[in-house]
Parts: sequence; C-alpha cells; structure tokens
Amino acid sequence: MMKLKNLGEFGLIERISRKLTKRNPEVLVGIGDDAAVVETGKSDFLVITTDTLIEKVHFDLKYTSFYGLGWKALAINISDCAAMGATPRHAVVTLGLPAKVNVKAVDDLYDGIRALARKVNVGIVGGDTISSPSHLVVSVTLTGEVKKKELLLRSGAKVGDSILVTGDLGGSAAGMKLLKKRKKSYRRLLDRHLMPFPRIAEAKVVSKSGMATSMIDDSDGLAKCLTDICNMSGVGARVWVGEIPISRETARVSRAPVDLALYGGEDYELMFTVPKAKAEKLARMIKRKTGTAVSIVGEIVARKKQVRLLSVSGKEIKLRSAGWEHFGRSV
Amino acid sequence: MMKLKNLGEFGLIERISRKLTKRNPEVLVGIGDDAAVVETGKSDFLVITTDTLIEKVHFDLKYTSFYGLGWKALAINISDCAAMGATPRHAVVTLGLPAKVNVKAVDDLYDGIRALARKVNVGIVGGDTISSPSHLVVSVTLTGEVKKKELLLRSGAKVGDSILVTGDLGGSAAGMKLLKKRKKSYRRLLDRHLMPFPRIAEAKVVSKSGMATSMIDDSDGLAKCLTDICNMSGVGARVWVGEIPISRETARVSRAPVDLALYGGEDYELMFTVPKAKAEKLARMIKRKTGTAVSIVGEIVARKKQVRLLSVSGKEIKLRSAGWEHFGRSV
Repeated sequence: MMKLKNLGEFGLIERISRKLTKRNPEVLVGIGDDAAVVETGKSDFLVITTDTLIEKVHFDLKYTSFYGLGWKALAINISDCAAMGATPRHAVVTLGLPAKVNVKAVDDLYDGIRALARKVNVGIVGGDTISSPSHLVVSVTLTGEVKKKELLLRSGAKVGDSILVTGDLGGSAAGMKLLKKRKKSYRRLLDRHLMPFPRIAEAKVVSKSGMATSMIDDSDGLAKCLTDICNMSGVGARVWVGEIPISRETARVSRAPVDLALYGGEDYELMFTVPKAKAEKLARMIKRKTGTAVSIVGEIVARKKQVRLLSVSGKEIKLRSAGWEHFGRSV
Repeated sequence: MMKLKNLGEFGLIERISRKLTKRNPEVLVGIGDDAAVVETGKSDFLVITTDTLIEKVHFDLKYTSFYGLGWKALAINISDCAAMGATPRHAVVTLGLPAKVNVKAVDDLYDGIRALARKVNVGIVGGDTISSPSHLVVSVTLTGEVKKKELLLRSGAKVGDSILVTGDLGGSAAGMKLLKKRKKSYRRLLDRHLMPFPRIAEAKVVSKSGMATSMIDDSDGLAKCLTDICNMSGVGARVWVGEIPISRETARVSRAPVDLALYGGEDYELMFTVPKAKAEKLARMIKRKTGTAVSIVGEIVARKKQVRLLSVSGKEIKLRSAGWEHFGRSV
C-alpha cells in the first residue's frame, strides 16, 4: 500500500488533479493554480480558493495568538486570490474546535479575521463551527472576481521574460525560527510569520498593467514557486542569487538567509514574469503606487534548462528538491 | 472563562453571527441560514455554503468507507444549497490527512466525491490537501446559483402555512444505531446514514413552484429545524406527531422511532412551509415529478405558541431541548 509520505503532498495533489480532470467547460482553471477560475456568463470570472490551517502542522498555540491565527487564515486565502489578479469578495470560515479552546479564544480568532476582512473589504458571509477531537482547525474559502483580461495564471511565462518579486523573502521563516527559540526581538520578522499582510494592492497594479505574463504568491519559497511557474508554463528559469531581496533583519538573524528565501516559504510576496523590456517600468510603477519595492531576480529560459540558480560569481548552485511538503516531514 | 460546552454549538454560532453583522449591502443572507446569499449584479444570486466532517465527531472509520465519506461530505453541502432553492455549481475540497491514511484511501474518497458530483453536475474545481496530526478532516465548500425569485430562506414562514416534509425521518439515526452494533442488515437504513442522496430534484420543484414561503434541510432533526424556521420567521408551530413520516424499517429497528425523527438528524430531507390552501397541490406535484412522497406534518401558528408537539390523542408532548449539538456531547 503506498504511503502518503512516499508520494508527498505535491505528488498527491497531482494525482488528485489527474482524477478530477476538467469535465466542465465553465471551469477554466481547476486544481493546480492558486485558485480555481470559473466562467459565470458575466464580464468577470469567479475565482474560488481555499486554505486550511491545522494546529501542530501550520501553527503552534505556544507562539500564535488566536487573533493572529484568524488574521493569517484569511490572509493566505486573500494572497492566493490576489495572485490571480482577482479582487477578493466573500469568505466562509470553518472552525474545528477542541474542548480546550474557550469562548474568549474564539472571539479573538474572529476579531483577527474581521480586522483583516475590513481592511481588504471582504465579507465574511458564513461558515461552520464544529468540535474537533484534539487539534484546532481553521479553514477559509474565499471567492473573488477578476476581469477576464486581468486574469493571471501560473502558466503564461515566456522565454525572455524577467522574473520579479515584491518586498523581501525569507522573513517569515526567519521569524518562525525566532519564535521557536522564544525570542521576542525583531518584531517585524515575527509579524511576517504570524500576521502576513497579503500583497493585494501590488497584485492589482500588476494585473491592471496588462504587462505580466504569469503570477504566483510565494507560499512555499522561491524555489517551489518558480518551479511551479516553469512547469505550468513549459519553460525554465535562471535566478541570480545575489538579486534575491533579503531584508537586513533576516540576514542578521540567520546564518543562511538565502536558504530561507529559497525554501522557507510563507512570505506571501508576489512572484511574476514580465517581458524584459517592460520589467523595469512595471517595477517602478508598483513602487510608485504602493510603496513596495520590486526586485528583478532572474529570467525565463528554455524548458530544458530547468530552474537554475547562479551565484554572484556566476557559478551554478545546486537546487534542493523544492519547497515545503507536509507529508514526510515530522512536525 | 466561559467554556464552549456551556455555550454549545448553536450558542456559539449565534455569538459569532452577532460579531459578523452584515456590513456589506451585497450580502443578503449571512450566517444563520443553510447557506450565504450574495448579490452579484446578475439575475441570479450566488450561494455559498461550507460543511466539514471530522473523524470521531461526524464519522468513524470503523464503519464508514472512504468512498462513502467523500460522497457524504459533498452531499451535505448540496443539501444545504438545494434547501435555498439553488442549483449547486462548483465545489472545493480540503482534506486534512493523518499519516495512517494511505493513497488508496484518498483515491477512494475522491471517487466518492466524483461519483456524486457527476450525478448532480457539480464541478470539483480545487482544494487543499494538508497533513493532520491525528484525525481525518474532510471539508467542502460549494457555490450555487439561484434565480432571485426562487430563493427560499428559513425566514419566510407565515401563520396559517402548512409544514411539509419529504420522504421519511429518523432513518439516518436508525442506521447509525445499527452500524454501532455492527449490524449489516437493513441496508437501506445504513445507506441513509452513510451515503445520503440530497433532495435536489424535490427542492427544485418546491422553489420553482413559487408556492413555498420557507425551506430548510433536515440535518439536525425535525425539532431543531422547525425551531430554526420559527425563530427566523418570528412564528410558532404545531406538529402532529402521528403525521411525521417514519419508514417501516425505522419503526422496526427502533423502540422510539419518533425520537429519532425529532432529534436524530442527518436525514437530509427537506422541510418547507406552504400556505394551507396550496399544500396538498404542491405535495402532489412533488410526488408526480420526482416520485418522492411528501407529508403534511403540522402548521405554523402565532409566535407565542412556540414549537408544540401534539400526540395522536391531542395531548401535548414536551419538546426536548432541540437537536444535535457538537460541544458538550461526548463522542
């Protein structure tokens, strides 16, 4: 009998996705992108995404507040939705509550959800509250809308495109390391991990510009996200490691900050591809409109080159098997 | 600190629902009905519903197959959607998988989901697969569409309406009792519990008829469902216990079949209210179009009478505190 940990999470998703091959012509994008995209007969597509946080797998109540947990559960869905170029609209929330959780904690959790929902103008329209035998479960499903011509998938990257990244990478993983050591300094890094703010404004600029060819949100680290874009687009990529944006704090608290950027994940920055001639222009436009810096970290090349990392001296760095897998890893 | 088991599931939902009071004018129905209803600027409303099954709370792998579990996780969402008068359209599925679950089991689970999805023409458009530390979690979120004039809420019942119920009640609870005793007889009762078929065709007849004033699906037993309709509509109800439809098998395997119908739940029959003069006509129409029998079990009265049960001899029967609560109950 094949064990899940041998197949791995991404293997399992691929297997499921093969089983659920599109039968419905209305479904433009099914499993395999940040969100599903559905034709509704209007000028906009309906986007649906879902993400779940399970205690001891995705968070630990030792260092996560209930408020922050509610915030993050919504934030990661908004990030997926934004990475399609879509405007998030309505969410439903399911809580699986073990007996140890008290009413005040549930209130705090919902306060965290509401606080972010209000900031990004999302309506929490329903949900389900059930008991869970041992671990806390927070599941959010979010709908969004995107104008047909503004939809951005993982599959549009072209040879010759530049690869752009918002903000900086590795901060969330650096924050998690500090939390595990019970450090309270570097508040900004801790918050990067505990209460990420989705790049909704930046994503809007990218999708409205009409310049980008693909986009993804960085939930699993640069290596995995870029591999996804390459696989879905049928291309390869070259990344200049020296160009990967890493904050001063991340560099200060970690001995291998580049590894955190490549493999840490949960940064919820945007990665997108843009024809080389337009890359600088779009980067400046985002900076001007949102205040967020954008870095050009590499370029799309032919498929057979796969995803390659080049050091500052031009030497190739071996890419580790990419990203954050749930099964197989001990928590 | 208030404990969840003192507040109870329904108390908690009410508390959350107060915190999330509608801010968004597009949200017509938020928490508190079978599904949320959202204005989209089209001739149809968008309906969103979510329901989650957690191992040891909602199912036991000792007597549930993975195929049946997948089927049921989708079925209960379709039932909620149908009870609004809506046509189910697209679903996302989240699996929280403990290490003990093997790949074959996940395949079976998805086969069960797909089998029902195909029957009712629902597209499984995405989802999330994550590890769960100890218990299996299956969460489904479903969207649907309903013509504005065909939307049926819990809140429309009027004094003088008749109360109608499809099929028969108590069968699912009777089936669960048999399963717990490891009985394999009465296959129809076991299937009522393990693989309910949502009353989607019957719901369509009700909503298209334009005759009904409110509708709900019976997931928590007649007592709780009718109490919900009464609370949301500001009315009371009188139920003639002798008219509650109970199958011969349910009556045969249980010493108190009426209690199963009132408090058992998970029957996924439809309960709806119709002006008295039209009740017989609608019941016959449903029978003719779908083959499903419909029973008139009571009538809507003024609010101050609350929900009252009348025995065959006309004596009032005390209503137990209604329905199926998750917290406070040992599993």
